[in-house]
Amino acid sequence: MRIAVDAMGGDFAPREIVAGAVQAARDLKHIKTLYLVGDRAAVEAELAKHGPRPSNIELVHASEVVGMDESPAIAVRRKKDSSIARSVDLVKSKEADAVFSAGSTGAAVASCQLKLRTLEGVTRPAIAAVFPSPTKPFILIDAGATPDCTPEILRQFAVMGSVYSREILKVPNPRIGLMSIGEEDAKGNETTKETFQLLEKSHLHFAGNIEGHDLFEGEIDVVVCDGFVGNVVLKTSESVGHAISTWIKQEFTSNPIRIIGALLLRGALKSFKRKINPEAYGGAPLLGVNGVCGIGHGSSSAFAAYNGIRAAAEAVKYDINQQIVEEIRKVEAAT
Amino acid sequence: MRIAVDAMGGDFAPREIVAGAVQAARDLKHIKTLYLVGDRAAVEAELAKHGPRPSNIELVHASEVVGMDESPAIAVRRKKDSSIARSVDLVKSKEADAVFSAGSTGAAVASCQLKLRTLEGVTRPAIAAVFPSPTKPFILIDAGATPDCTPEILRQFAVMGSVYSREILKVPNPRIGLMSIGEEDAKGNETTKETFQLLEKSHLHFAGNIEGHDLFEGEIDVVVCDGFVGNVVLKTSESVGHAISTWIKQEFTSNPIRIIGALLLRGALKSFKRKINPEAYGGAPLLGVNGVCGIGHGSSSAFAAYNGIRAAAEAVKYDINQQIVEEIRKVEAAT
Repeated sequence: MRIAVDAMGGDFAPREIVAGAVQAARDLKHIKTLYLVGDRAAVEAELAKHGPRPSNIELVHASEVVGMDESPAIAVRRKKDSSIARSVDLVKSKEADAVFSAGSTGAAVASCQLKLRTLEGVTRPAIAAVFPSPTKPFILIDAGATPDCTPEILRQFAVMGSVYSREILKVPNPRIGLMSIGEEDAKGNETTKETFQLLEKSHLHFAGNIEGHDLFEGEIDVVVCDGFVGNVVLKTSESVGHAISTWIKQEFTSNPIRIIGALLLRGALKSFKRKINPEAYGGAPLLGVNGVCGIGHGSSSAFAAYNGIRAAAEAVKYDINQQIVEEIRKVEAAT
Repeated sequence: MRIAVDAMGGDFAPREIVAGAVQAARDLKHIKTLYLVGDRAAVEAELAKHGPRPSNIELVHASEVVGMDESPAIAVRRKKDSSIARSVDLVKSKEADAVFSAGSTGAAVASCQLKLRTLEGVTRPAIAAVFPSPTKPFILIDAGATPDCTPEILRQFAVMGSVYSREILKVPNPRIGLMSIGEEDAKGNETTKETFQLLEKSHLHFAGNIEGHDLFEGEIDVVVCDGFVGNVVLKTSESVGHAISTWIKQEFTSNPIRIIGALLLRGALKSFKRKINPEAYGGAPLLGVNGVCGIGHGSSSAFAAYNGIRAAAEAVKYDINQQIVEEIRKVEAAT
């Protein structure tokens, strides 16, 4: 198996990405070639920090980088030699089986859509984000690739999320919830009401509508919504988490007794931080394109990059794209 | 001023609602009559717990209650003598200037839409929810009354939220953010892209698109979105808060040293809980209907009910409906 890694993508690239990639190249025995794509000098400099270079690492030079704040559509058209474009090119030419990038999500999505096209039967791609929860992690699909969706597209997202949950997160028969604003089938907006009917008639394990309240309760494995709502949910969740930790920090350090209490709870706070860290789950794959594409958070550490590369490799190993094609065919043939 | 209070609406009704109403009747001197609407015997029993009855409280009997899990549309049609229906009737007949209910939000919205109709120039009503934040509270509109919106409707929501923020939360020249999934004007879904153009041309203080990340950063006073997205944001925020406190509780009680630490931080945790408690802000008004309607959270305490009644009284006092009509006329005349 061969994986292309966008070495320049991410807030802490190339340092953290190269570090994670070296570990992946060493640990994951089924990776025959790991392409590190980016500025050769910068990547070489980072590689030199990690001892003898693993023999399965290969460098591919790319002279440009797409910035986190650039317009993805324009960047993809203009920067033909960017590290993300070159990485996706390797998948397109079948030199690589998968790509991983922690750079601009928009640029990764646009490159994959443009160069790889969608899978047979798939109308639009979707990002499947893994959310931590006190009980067990769940997937939200779409986290931002396709903001405007029809009921038929949402049904495809349900299939793709179900396959990913089953094959990569090892959830047998994943329960699917349709993101809405009330539990009855007559609740929601026009699109979700129609989607409810489609999902109920399908072979999928559809558990009905869910609300924001239900997200972290452990009852649902795959949350289905359009990319607008999904992106809002993802970023709102991060935002609430950040606001709460700001408040807690203010409170915990406001007098000496509290500071002593906080010191006694240092281990608890660390353990909590580890548990809510989504980096263990390997980022968010872009599903529905003709190739495997793993997308990491912009703030990806080496740990996140390692897990993202691992998850992309697993998606190749379990051939989830073939399963997606077959299940979409099945769900659409039944209607 | 006369306020109708749905004494039976809410998880802890009539106990908490009556307690909050008695305090409001005593403290808020401008309330000439406070109607407590609900089962007479149940309300009398609660009233008896609070000493001499304030002379401005009047009981209005209603034989039915709309349950939190009932379908609002059906309940409003069938239960003509419910406490929420009777409360709204008092506003319709001009016997009351405002209504407050912590019962089923859907039933309150449906009753007001059906009986009061919308204000002149307003297409659809919207719920303005106040969110606490580490810097200062902000309004999100719509939190769930109108799931499907056109750009013109979203512009009306921006006007209504702006008026409420200015008059009730006392924010001079409130900054309006359009909930989207990217900051540039070309980001979002088809509806938000058009709404961006409308808001930019308006006299409102439009600060552009915001993302979930920006919600609690204190840069925006009024967040505009459709009722589907708003309800998802509201409930996701509550859900994340709940998940985090579950995790923290697990961690803080997992060994004796941590328990001691947690005891030293008891004050900090209480103060934090108080700060994130939205009950101080008086619930969420339903804006755009021909009357003032305050909606409390289902879990409203006496404190929440008191503040909800206070906020409804202020909405009457500052005549926000007249201002909404005038500002919508202004914004629509300019296009």
